[in-house]
This record gives sequence, C-alpha cells and structure tokens, in this order.
Amino acid sequence: MKRIAVLTSGGDAPGMNAAVRAVARKAITEGMEVFGINRGYAGMVEGDIFQLEAGTVANILSNGGTFLQSARYPEFATLEGQLKGIEQLKKHGIEGVVVVGGDGSYHGAMRLTEHGFPAVGLPGTIDNDIVGTDYTIGFDTAVSTATEALDRIRDTSASHDRTFVVEVMGRNAGDIALWSGIASGADQIIIPEEDYDIDEVVAKIKEGYSRNKKHHIIVLAEGVMSGEEFAAKLKEAGDDSDLRVTNLGHLLRGGAPTARDRVLASWMGARAVELLKEGRGGVAVGIQKEALVESPILGTAEEGALFSLEGDKIVVNNPHKARLDFAKLNKDLAN
Amino acid sequence: MKRIAVLTSGGDAPGMNAAVRAVARKAITEGMEVFGINRGYAGMVEGDIFQLEAGTVANILSNGGTFLQSARYPEFATLEGQLKGIEQLKKHGIEGVVVVGGDGSYHGAMRLTEHGFPAVGLPGTIDNDIVGTDYTIGFDTAVSTATEALDRIRDTSASHDRTFVVEVMGRNAGDIALWSGIASGADQIIIPEEDYDIDEVVAKIKEGYSRNKKHHIIVLAEGVMSGEEFAAKLKEAGDDSDLRVTNLGHLLRGGAPTARDRVLASWMGARAVELLKEGRGGVAVGIQKEALVESPILGTAEEGALFSLEGDKIVVNNPHKARLDFAKLNKDLAN
Amino acid sequence: MKRIAVLTSGGDAPGMNAAVRAVARKAITEGMEVFGINRGYAGMVEGDIFQLEAGTVANILSNGGTFLQSARYPEFATLEGQLKGIEQLKKHGIEGVVVVGGDGSYHGAMRLTEHGFPAVGLPGTIDNDIVGTDYTIGFDTAVSTATEALDRIRDTSASHDRTFVVEVMGRNAGDIALWSGIASGADQIIIPEEDYDIDEVVAKIKEGYSRNKKHHIIVLAEGVMSGEEFAAKLKEAGDDSDLRVTNLGHLLRGGAPTARDRVLASWMGARAVELLKEGRGGVAVGIQKEALVESPILGTAEEGALFSLEGDKIVVNNPHKARLDFAKLNKDLAN
Amino acid sequence: MKRIAVLTSGGDAPGMNAAVRAVARKAITEGMEVFGINRGYAGMVEGDIFQLEAGTVANILSNGGTFLQSARYPEFATLEGQLKGIEQLKKHGIEGVVVVGGDGSYHGAMRLTEHGFPAVGLPGTIDNDIVGTDYTIGFDTAVSTATEALDRIRDTSASHDRTFVVEVMGRNAGDIALWSGIASGADQIIIPEEDYDIDEVVAKIKEGYSRNKKHHIIVLAEGVMSGEEFAAKLKEAGDDSDLRVTNLGHLLRGGAPTARDRVLASWMGARAVELLKEGRGGVAVGIQKEALVESPILGTAEEGALFSLEGDKIVVNNPHKARLDFAKLNKDLAN
Repeated sequence: MKRIAVLTSGGDAPGMNAAVRAVARKAITEGMEVFGINRGYAGMVEGDIFQLEAGTVANILSNGGTFLQSARYPEFATLEGQLKGIEQLKKHGIEGVVVVGGDGSYHGAMRLTEHGFPAVGLPGTIDNDIVGTDYTIGFDTAVSTATEALDRIRDTSASHDRTFVVEVMGRNAGDIALWSGIASGADQIIIPEEDYDIDEVVAKIKEGYSRNKKHHIIVLAEGVMSGEEFAAKLKEAGDDSDLRVTNLGHLLRGGAPTARDRVLASWMGARAVELLKEGRGGVAVGIQKEALVESPILGTAEEGALFSLEGDKIVVNNPHKARLDFAKLNKDLAN
Repeated sequence: MKRIAVLTSGGDAPGMNAAVRAVARKAITEGMEVFGINRGYAGMVEGDIFQLEAGTVANILSNGGTFLQSARYPEFATLEGQLKGIEQLKKHGIEGVVVVGGDGSYHGAMRLTEHGFPAVGLPGTIDNDIVGTDYTIGFDTAVSTATEALDRIRDTSASHDRTFVVEVMGRNAGDIALWSGIASGADQIIIPEEDYDIDEVVAKIKEGYSRNKKHHIIVLAEGVMSGEEFAAKLKEAGDDSDLRVTNLGHLLRGGAPTARDRVLASWMGARAVELLKEGRGGVAVGIQKEALVESPILGTAEEGALFSLEGDKIVVNNPHKARLDFAKLNKDLAN
Repeated sequence: MKRIAVLTSGGDAPGMNAAVRAVARKAITEGMEVFGINRGYAGMVEGDIFQLEAGTVANILSNGGTFLQSARYPEFATLEGQLKGIEQLKKHGIEGVVVVGGDGSYHGAMRLTEHGFPAVGLPGTIDNDIVGTDYTIGFDTAVSTATEALDRIRDTSASHDRTFVVEVMGRNAGDIALWSGIASGADQIIIPEEDYDIDEVVAKIKEGYSRNKKHHIIVLAEGVMSGEEFAAKLKEAGDDSDLRVTNLGHLLRGGAPTARDRVLASWMGARAVELLKEGRGGVAVGIQKEALVESPILGTAEEGALFSLEGDKIVVNNPHKARLDFAKLNKDLAN
Repeated sequence: MKRIAVLTSGGDAPGMNAAVRAVARKAITEGMEVFGINRGYAGMVEGDIFQLEAGTVANILSNGGTFLQSARYPEFATLEGQLKGIEQLKKHGIEGVVVVGGDGSYHGAMRLTEHGFPAVGLPGTIDNDIVGTDYTIGFDTAVSTATEALDRIRDTSASHDRTFVVEVMGRNAGDIALWSGIASGADQIIIPEEDYDIDEVVAKIKEGYSRNKKHHIIVLAEGVMSGEEFAAKLKEAGDDSDLRVTNLGHLLRGGAPTARDRVLASWMGARAVELLKEGRGGVAVGIQKEALVESPILGTAEEGALFSLEGDKIVVNNPHKARLDFAKLNKDLAN
C-alpha cells in the first residue's frame, strides 16, 4: 500500500488530532503518502481530500477538537454513498483509510472493506462506550475536565452549604460519571448501568446534615435523565437542602488532550498504519489490558468480532459496561 | 485596637481566602490578635467565632471558595441583628471587623460602624460590579475560568461547524462576558449595558457562512436573559445554523484563584488592617488606577462616598459600568 | 482487625493523599478505626500517630504532596527500629498498617509482617519504577506536568529556532521521559534503558536544519546524565544549534493529582484495607493489565514475589522496564 | 495609510500572538491591508514578509510564543540595516509598522520613524521591565506560570520539610519574583531592586524551625544571582536545613497567555493601528493607571519620552522600578 488516508467522524474528542498526527507520521516513516479527509464521510464523498506532510501535522498534537473537522453523514449508510466515497479515494490513488470515531464510523469502515477497500477503525469518543477497547481516545481528557470542574463546584458548594447535581456526558455509559465522581470525591454517582432509589439518595443527603456535613455533590450521567429532571425528583422525594444544578455539557468535548490521551492515540494510530500496510481492513484497533489489540468489526462473537449481523440488525457482541466495582468503590469512600 | 475579626459574606469568590489570610497575617504582624467569623453575618450573630493563628491560614492562599464559609443573612438588616452581632464580637474582646463581600456586606459594615463598631469592607465577588474599585477579588479568576471554558468550546464548535451561545455569570455587569469574550476571540458579546439587535446578531452569523466560516461563539451575560431564551430568539429571527447552548454557571465561582487575584486580595487585605489600626471604619478598600484607595461607604457623592441615602433609599453614587470601549474593541477584532 | 494505620514514605508523589483518604474511608466503612502516622517510619518509631476520622480526610483528595508528610529513615532497616515501631503501634491498639511509598517502604512492610505485624504496600512514586504494578501512584500526574512544561518550552523553542535539552526525573526508569516525550511530540528521547549514539543525536538535529526545521526538543531522563552534561556532549559532537538546557526537577513531584492518579490511588487504597481485614500482610497491591493484583513482597520468583533474598542481598525478581516499544513509537512519529 | 506590517522582536512572550491578531484584525476593520514579518528585524531586512488575512490569525489568540517568530538582530542598529529594512517594506507598499518587543525593539522603531517610516512600539516581554507601561504583554502569564510552579514546589517542600530556592526570570526587574512570591505565599523574596542580608535570610529560616515550621520557600530573581550561587551563600552563612534549588527558567516564557494578557495585548494592539492610521510613529503604546497611553520613544523627559540621548548614549528617562511596597507587603504576610 502506497497511499492511505485518515478521517475523523462522529462527535469530536480530544486526542483525535494526536491520532491523525500518528497516522500521518507513521505512514511517512513507512514510506507511504498520506492524505487527510475533511468532515468525515461527508468530505470523503465530496472529495474534500488533501495531502498531509510531516509538517502539516507538526503543531496539532496538543490541540483539542479535530483539525480535519467532523460531521454526521447518515447518507454513508447507503451503498451509493459508499461507492461514491471509494471512487473519490481512488481518484487520489488512495488504497486504504483510517477512520477515527465511534460505532457509526466503524460500520462505515466495515462497508468500505466489504467493497474491497481496506479501512481500519480507531476508537475516538469521550464517552468510552466503544466495544473492543478499554479506553477510547478522549475519555481521559473528559474525565480530567469533569474532575477539574467538580473540584471548582466543590469550592462553592462547601462555601455555601449547598447540594449540587452535576450532569456529565455519557448517553449510554456511566464511565465519565464514575471516574470523575471518584476522582472528585463525589458523594453520590448516578449512572445508567445501575438502579438507584431516589429515597435513598435523599436519605444520604439528610444523613450528612445530621452530622453537620451540609454540602453534597451528586454526579449524574446524562443517560439517566437531565440534571433538572433529577433535581425535581429529589425535591419530590423530600429533599430540602439548598439545591443547584449544573450541566458540564459541551465543556467536556474540548480542551487540550491529556498526556495519556495523546500517548494512547499515538500508539493506536501508528498500529492502524501497520495494519493497512499488511493489507488488513475491517478491523478496529483498541487497547485491552494494557496491550494493543485488533478486533474484526463484523463477524461472530467467537471470532472476537465487535458486531454481528442478526438478519438485518447489527448486534453488539460484548457491549461495553461501566465498571460496577467502581460504583461500589465510590460508595465505600463517600461516607 | 488589639483584636479584630474577619468574615466573608455574599456569594463566594476565589481569592476570598487570600484576603482572609492577608488580614490575619498583617494583624499578627501589627501585634494584634485576629479572629475568624464563620458563615458571614449569620455566624457573627450566633457567635461562631474562633481565633486565627498564623498557621491557621498557612495553606488557604491557593484554595477556591472561602474556608470561613459564607451565607445570606437578611436578618442583619435589622437593628436587633446588628446589636446582637456587636455583642457577640465584644464578648470576644473584638474591636473592629473586616468584611469581604459585595454591596449587601458593605451595608452591614456601615451599620456596625454607625453603632460605634468600626468595620472595613473589601470587594469580594466574581462579577466586578462593586463600586469604589476597578477590580473585585475573584473577577480575574472568573474571567480566566470562563476563557478556558470558551477555548474548549471553540474546539468543538470549530470541529463541527456549530454556533454556541455561552452564558456567563453577571447579573448587573457585563464585565466577565466582555473580558472573557475578548480573551477567547468570541464573535459576539451580549451584555446588559449595551443594546443589541437580534437581526444584526443573526446577520453576523450568516455573513460568516457566506465566507465559509461556520463556527460562531456568542458570549452572553446572564443579566440579559438566559442562554436558552437567547437561542430561541435567534431561531425566531431566522438563524438556521447548528445552534447549541451552554451555561458556565457555578463553574465560574470556584477554582484556585489566579495569581493576580491573590496579589490584589493580599494587598487590599493588608490595607484593611491598617485602617482598623488607625481606628477607621465605615470605609471600603478598593484599587483604582493601580493604587489602593479607600472610600466612605455612606455619605455624599462629593465626599466620594459609595452610597448615599435619599430618604430611606440607598442610592449608588457612581454605579459600576462595564467598559463600553471593550465592547467596541471586540467588534473591531471579531471580523 | 479493628484498628489499622497508614503512612507515606520515600519521595512524595501526587495521589498519596488520595490513597490515604481511601484507606481511611474504606476502613471506616468496614467498621474499623484508622490512624495516620506522620513522617513515615520515623513517625512510627517516635509514636507520631493520630486518629483519622472521615472528616479528617475530607479535603485532601485533590491536594498534591502528602499531608502525613514523608521522611527518609534508614534506621528502620535495623531490628531495633522495627520493634520500636511495632511497640508504638501496639500502644495505640493498631493491628495492621498500610505503607504508601517505594521499594524501601516495601522492605519495611516486609519486616513488620515477619515480626507478626501485617503490613501492606501501595506503590507511591512518580517514577513508575516499582515492581508489581503497571502504574504507580503519581506517575500519571508527573507525566502530565512534564508534558505541560514541554508544551510551554516548545512555544519558545519554535519562536526562537532553538534546541532544548529538557531533563526530567527518572533515576532508574525512563517512563516519565518516554510518556511525556511522546505526548509532547519530542524530537528525541534519551532514557537509561536504551543506548544512544551522540553522533546520531546531533545528526538528527542537523537533518532538521537541512529541511528548515530549526527547533528541536530532546527529553532526557536524569538517570542518563544531567542536562548540562548532555548539552556539553552535544556541543563536543558538533552541534552548532542555539542550545538551551532546562531541568524540570522538583516541579514534577507536586501539584494536584490527575483524575487518573486519584482513581488508581483510591482503588488500590481500598484494596489494601480489604487485605488487612483478611489478616494478610507482606504483600503489595498493584494494577496489572487493568486489574488489581497483590504480590508477596518477599519470596521466590515462582511465587510471584517482588523480591528474593540471595544470601544477604535483596534481588528484584522482575525489575521494572520502560516500554521500549514506546521508544520505537516516538522514533516513528518524530520525523 | 493603506498598508501596515507587524513584527515580534526580542525574547518571545505569551500574548504576542494576541497582539499580532489585534493589529491584523483592527487594520482590516479600518480598511487597511496588513502584513506579517517573520523573525523580527532580521526578516524585515531579508524581506520575509507575507499578507495576513482575518483567517490567518483566527486561531493564534490562545497560543503561546509568537507565530511570526522572533530573533535577535544586532545588525539593525546600523543605518545600512535600517535602510535595507525600509526598502523591503516599501517593496510591498507598506507604509507603517508595529513592533512588539522590548527596549531594543523600541530603538529600532525609533530609527525607522526618524527615516520617515512610522513605527509604533508595543511592550512585549515577560519581565515587565519596559518603560512607559505598568504592564507588559506576557507578564501576567509568567507570574501565573511561576505561581503554579511555586504551588507545586510547596507541596513537596511541605511533605519533606525542605527549603527551596526557586529562581525565576527577571534580569533587571524583580516583578515576576514579587508577584509570584506574594501569590504563592513565599517566605522570602530576593530581588535586584532591594538589598538583602544573607544572615537575616538564614535567621528567618531558623526562626521557622524554632516554631516547628520546617519548610521554606525563597523566590529569587535571576538578576540577583543564580539559585545555585544563592544556595551556596546560604550554606556559608550557616543554613543547615534540607536545601534544594530549582530554576523555573524558560518555562516562564511559554504557555497559553492568561485571559488578562490576551485582553491587554488586544487593547494595545488595536491602539497601535489607530496611531499609524493617524500617521503617527516613534511612539510606544502602554497601559498606565488602567488607561491606554502613548509615549514618544525618544525625546526629553519633560515631553514624557521614554528615552533621551546624552551625547551618543541612550538614557532611560523613568526607569521601571518594581514595587517596593509589594516587597514590604510580602514581609508583613510571610510571618
């Protein structure tokens, strides 16, 4: 393979630039030429493609967001979109592509490979909810940003004897809530993976008051419900503390990636190039138990594939689960 | 004066701890004893008072919030509350008090002084809306935190071609919005001190699109309206960009104070002690044109007093104004 | 076991406070009483011991350093010192102890256990050079701090076309150099685990000049030699770039721990308490392949012990090695 | 004036990019064309000049260093160099220039103006030692970075009962030392503007020991002597504490500018364009007492000029002085 390309797709995540840099630099080291595709699959189909030199990616490592931009592009689910994309890539002599993004991005990579155009996936999202990897690119930064914000909120919560409900991103996965909650010493963490009893949540606040601890922080993953809704439930259930709601929202997507995210992104990015060099596609790179792994994107669970087809439906073989032992850990430490 | 006390009142602000430390350390250097009062005027009335040694304040300089806690206490507006407070202070042999907080806190300080108990005010609030000073303690930190958040939001805004309305604190004053907007290169800044035309706001977004600049950040001071309301207005006025709203809210109150806030707080805190040592009360310390000043809290405008009485009503003599030249500056630079 | 204690020993590391908090809180949750020992083994022998309540450790999670303080205390290598230490602990009714620190601290824990007093080790050092764990408490923070500093130095290096030799901590292990070097896009990384050829180092700088890239950053682990010595070698070998040396030194030991360090410290700290509760001592907790592990401190390599005795000499069974694949990775990406 | 240019000169400083952006954006708003000159006066003489569009400077506001690069170029002191520079500028139709830098840069601007080519100076240096302004661009960031580093060092100093001598930049001016020292609660601050007695310095450390305060931080401006030399003097004078030396050195030059530095740089940058538009040169913009000022670079002290000629010698009319009241303030607070 002499020419490859790289794109970022789905929600942006800190460290995507580090991954793109790694793909570009590793490809150049391996004697390949490398191209960037703007705005994900949309840019692929439109042919918004340009060559990356070593210097092009010289100053992006520490930048948040993705300089290739990202966009949702549901049209890529159609055969027509896929073939158009491949046509554009071939026009530039490109023979393989690295896709940094989430689940939807992986499916696109699978389709390209099925059409004979090798594509490799890299897990890029702050939510940490992608199968096939213990950590996604962007997760550590989002946890770090959330923790910093929670540290700040604790200052004002403690100064004023207030209860704060702090909503953090995580539609399906409570990972950001769990990690940032433990890291900031949250009193309670509410995640989609685990049931909660609103009366117990209120009882815990009251128990604090009974021993003169009157500030309380509840970290809430957005997948459960919104912070405002949760606060209303607390009040209904009898909470009478001075209650405030904050939503960290889009703050968590931006910012310079942490050192760890940059290292993981660099490590996985370089591996993706090696796979393409070997002519392999249809796989996603991940980190499991501190080692690089690659998993087939589509196939049977026995083969270690991330997804299977059941009729027309795509099934996730080993859906990501937040660590419930961490939920337990926080309960033990928040007394 | 041999014994003084210090309290923090109103909304907490980063740097309040630095001010308390400065009061304590300076008093000790001047041969006085110094006491901390917990939870503002509430703690004063309840007698929640304890001695501060040099070591007590040894590790608070870099902490956000206020280790003395703060609380609203409208009861202090009554004569009864004030006399009760003085009684408690006298019980500890305390002869003067430093009050760190906002407008309401200054009024309390005025009352104490009128009753023969000298009190000095220090401007502590993130909003920068206190008369008699160019900068309040906490403002620089809030601007810094808002700017960092805006930098993050710009990452994701640029990666996805989105418009963001970012609401920042500032009920009466647009200072946080102006400074953080200029510092982060916001496209538009909406503040209470200046009218805006919603059609022009939308036109400016569209003008960006016309030259392929599709991300846009609008910083909105909460005093104008909420971010959600403003976004609704934008849509009504014809905006068709991919629009998101974020509210930085309570994030801006917390966090380690910036170096500048620590220096200003230390400088003003030490001055407050000198004033009490001279037996002066009923004044507030501020920084104007890079120099320490002290202004009478109550009196005539001619005397340079911060507030006047018109009948029963308290009037602000020279209400704080955000710098409209900064509003103009941002318009010039945001093209 | 009804009463345990915790101490920090050796060089301080960010996250030690998080570990102490976890030990204290978990112990209380398990119905135990828990004590803090000041200044490591020195404080143990002197009986500088005090009870930790849930509230005592309420605000230390995000603080750098160790509020229990640390100290070197070679006298603890003597039988007399050890017995004196146990005597002091027993005086307080303490039955087991958690030791957070490095190799030397583990040896002390081993001795205590041999004398019938169960002690459990937790890996606390920024250097990441402790056997039995993939990550030590403090390492992620040190990497993060070094990366931030390297980002800063790159600003000025690029503005002035300069070469910088940046010395980072790591007497035996190149981990900090490797991770922060990759994370900051260092041009070259020099570590004790890998030979280098000074002529090649110089050639690489010159090669950059040949294509008009005139700023260059070399990250140097202190275990190789000092930054000044390395710079002298570069000049001897013919480097004629504008060369500067910076030593990040003690900067890397301090600062608020990263979210990740806080989580790892909390996780391991809670486990240490479980082990003591089961009556187990003479083991060290670690994290390997994303799971908690505990290893015997002393024993045979076959038993998985960290250290063995060969006559009088203590031998490390599986000495820590920095990832040489990461050294290769950086070479691939630094072109 | 229809075309102007901007360059950065001397040591780089955070906020220089914000100043360049402001010059570019303001010029475009005023209907001018604007050019960037690479590598200061060296690039001017070599004709290394390119047009800046609004988009060119779109993402530099938050970046440290200077994307125009900087370089020392003593040759510009010669008439030949100056005329060559003007020739290059005129070749591009450029009629005026903004120079961001230190004293030397101002002299260049003066010469250009004397030759009929209007040039305006902006104070860019971390040291805060430029006449005609209360604050230089970069100073607030350097203080912030130094304070953050000192906070870190305090962690480890307190954990180990150590004395630290921390050297910070400031060849002629103690401003960075004073501000960061106050902000971090340094025990002692040694600056070039004020004598010190080494015996008193040691006595103060010992006095701390006498009341069991065994960690001590001394902030030392490089203009006094190196940290190593100072430590040697301490030891000679009888200090027997556990003493370490750290040099923050080049760390202080880099990093994202603080919000305040970005605002000040934007404010002054826009003013420089207005001056050129009015055809004025030979002046430097500054901020004094919270207002924009412009001072003649060369002239008599009576005219408010920054420098005067005494024969061939350039004399500084009102040399910058660090605030000795701040030195006193720290002594009062460090007890």
